[in-house]
Amino acid sequence: MPLTEPYLLTPGPLTTSLTVKQAMLRDWGSWDSDFNHLTADICRRLLQVAHGEDQFVCVPLQGSGTYAVEATLATLIPFTAKALVLMNGAYGQRMAKILQYLGRSFVTLDMGDYLPPPPDRVDALLAADPAITHVAVVHCETSSGILNPVEAIAQVVATHGRRLIIDAMSAFGALPTDLRELPCDALVASANKCFEGVPGFGFALIRREALVASAGNAHSLSLDLYDQWAAMERSGQWRFTPPTHVVAAFAQALTEHEAEGGAVGRLARYTANRDRLVAGMRAMGFHTLLADRWLSPIIVTFHSPADPRFDFAAFYRLIREQGFIIYPGKLTVVDSFRIGCIGQLFAAQMDGVLAAVRTALDALGIADGSPRPEDLNTAEF
Amino acid sequence: MPLTEPYLLTPGPLTTSLTVKQAMLRDWGSWDSDFNHLTADICRRLLQVAHGEDQFVCVPLQGSGTYAVEATLATLIPFTAKALVLMNGAYGQRMAKILQYLGRSFVTLDMGDYLPPPPDRVDALLAADPAITHVAVVHCETSSGILNPVEAIAQVVATHGRRLIIDAMSAFGALPTDLRELPCDALVASANKCFEGVPGFGFALIRREALVASAGNAHSLSLDLYDQWAAMERSGQWRFTPPTHVVAAFAQALTEHEAEGGAVGRLARYTANRDRLVAGMRAMGFHTLLADRWLSPIIVTFHSPADPRFDFAAFYRLIREQGFIIYPGKLTVVDSFRIGCIGQLFAAQMDGVLAAVRTALDALGIADGSPRPEDLNTAEF
Repeated sequence: MPLTEPYLLTPGPLTTSLTVKQAMLRDWGSWDSDFNHLTADICRRLLQVAHGEDQFVCVPLQGSGTYAVEATLATLIPFTAKALVLMNGAYGQRMAKILQYLGRSFVTLDMGDYLPPPPDRVDALLAADPAITHVAVVHCETSSGILNPVEAIAQVVATHGRRLIIDAMSAFGALPTDLRELPCDALVASANKCFEGVPGFGFALIRREALVASAGNAHSLSLDLYDQWAAMERSGQWRFTPPTHVVAAFAQALTEHEAEGGAVGRLARYTANRDRLVAGMRAMGFHTLLADRWLSPIIVTFHSPADPRFDFAAFYRLIREQGFIIYPGKLTVVDSFRIGCIGQLFAAQMDGVLAAVRTALDALGIADGSPRPEDLNTAEF
Repeated sequence: MPLTEPYLLTPGPLTTSLTVKQAMLRDWGSWDSDFNHLTADICRRLLQVAHGEDQFVCVPLQGSGTYAVEATLATLIPFTAKALVLMNGAYGQRMAKILQYLGRSFVTLDMGDYLPPPPDRVDALLAADPAITHVAVVHCETSSGILNPVEAIAQVVATHGRRLIIDAMSAFGALPTDLRELPCDALVASANKCFEGVPGFGFALIRREALVASAGNAHSLSLDLYDQWAAMERSGQWRFTPPTHVVAAFAQALTEHEAEGGAVGRLARYTANRDRLVAGMRAMGFHTLLADRWLSPIIVTFHSPADPRFDFAAFYRLIREQGFIIYPGKLTVVDSFRIGCIGQLFAAQMDGVLAAVRTALDALGIADGSPRPEDLNTAEF
């Protein structure tokens, strides 16, 4: 590994352990039983993490997390259905865009850049429109870093007898997830987020009865999760060439996830990372976009400094030269940037990025990171 | 790498070099310019291999090769078009299945298990049906291992002013491919075939004017190659998380491909592998499914021995114990199995698998590999 390899403080791909990457130093025959066992083992362990063994199945899918989201929406939402998409950032918007491609009926609740979708608004929308059959929500919307109130929303959706699909991409593996108590039909995530694998496939944990009923819904052979699941049940194999090395790395990542104490252990480390990061940034005058109660332990959005000498490209480059890759903002209204807390990052790396931020500010001649007061988020929520 | 890792004599995933796998020992930020350069470099080099720099663009796509085929068909064939699919095995059939999912009009020329689609039949079909706008063909159909007469078919299609899409999955990188002389709109392949990368993405080389005209055709956000290309042109980035490690491995694989003399050097090695394999198998009494002129240097199908003691599962296991993974047959009519010639395989490995086959036959008490005479392919072609 070159010494110059920077740490990735981003929402993924992440900095992974060397042992996870070393698991890719072997070639697997995708038809061979050794590899089938590996796939079955991963699915079993993912269901365990989510306590979904009884009523859910795990369907892995080649491609990025978005592929898994599209495949889940297309497979579970029939043409005759109508969806409500809760949006407060790029990933909610992306689900709406997917439904547009799919030609499915849908309405949206758009909260803008960072406000959480209020469960009582969802309640009112479902009460007013009995045609809505499915609700789609993002657990951690990494556009702003907000942790949406998924549990409360799930209860509302269940009360109305509608079906819920959760994009848990950057939450599952760290945030508590108990499918015995979280009424939903599907939870979608990917290999390279909180499980700290490398990118190349995603997966959906799907309520078995919902999946069984979904034959013929999908718009795409490649993205047909019913077909993927049915073929795996029959043969133990992926229908099309799986990213064998990435799958092997993920098995190792799951072992390391378990060794860290599972989601509980990982959440503790990510939370400590976030707290250290936020305290250090605030000490330099930076403000978080969100109030503390909405801050996820996944990624944090900071307002850009008001100082006119601040230039994100230069700031990014200066920090990168010190060995840390941060992330641009994704808000439509105010200038911001993001720093992630997930991956193989510990106190030393959080201290390292804080020192790098200080050095970068100094190099730009910026005394402190305070934003323009008029950009501060004063919405009551 | 464990000593027990078997060689993969399959159509992919393949046995790759250690240096290709070692390129995965680093994490890349998918938003970072270093990674963008890597992607641009790969696309440039792939276009060079195919001599397509002038009129074609390269669009990489996350997922397996089938994803890239589906994405290409969906992006290039509008709803108002009509396709002719040339089928002589599983991959031609798969293209028809994809078009069915896509709701596109199509007809097929189905040659069964292994007969090549005759250019004069294609000529007659196109003459008889002016509504056909696109033709889809598989270059090397690995179901049987046949090398289809793609150049002659391309000339026929061009003469009729129709558009050709070539699934060159297991051909491109070894078989000669010169887009300056091969009239087609797209050539689709993947990372883990003759370029000897690891699986995780595919790519299409698409005629620029055809791609520019294809906005709005695709059925899927994830598989929209127009959108993927347009976003890459704008930002240099993949729209959704790329399999960063697999992409880095592919860059190394391309370097090793060039060092071996490009497609010419690779074809020479694969051809030598095939000739050594076929001669050795014939010396044990085995028969190839195809006559010599149709045998690809990619994978060879052999008839199962007539001896009633032959059992493929046992045969496979005995060969695997000696360190070689062979491949089951995929024919509908006669019993067969396949042995691949591609990947990091040289004379020593071909001799090794031949010795393993001999040992396996002995263990099963089978004197020689001769098939039942009535299974032999006597079709005149």
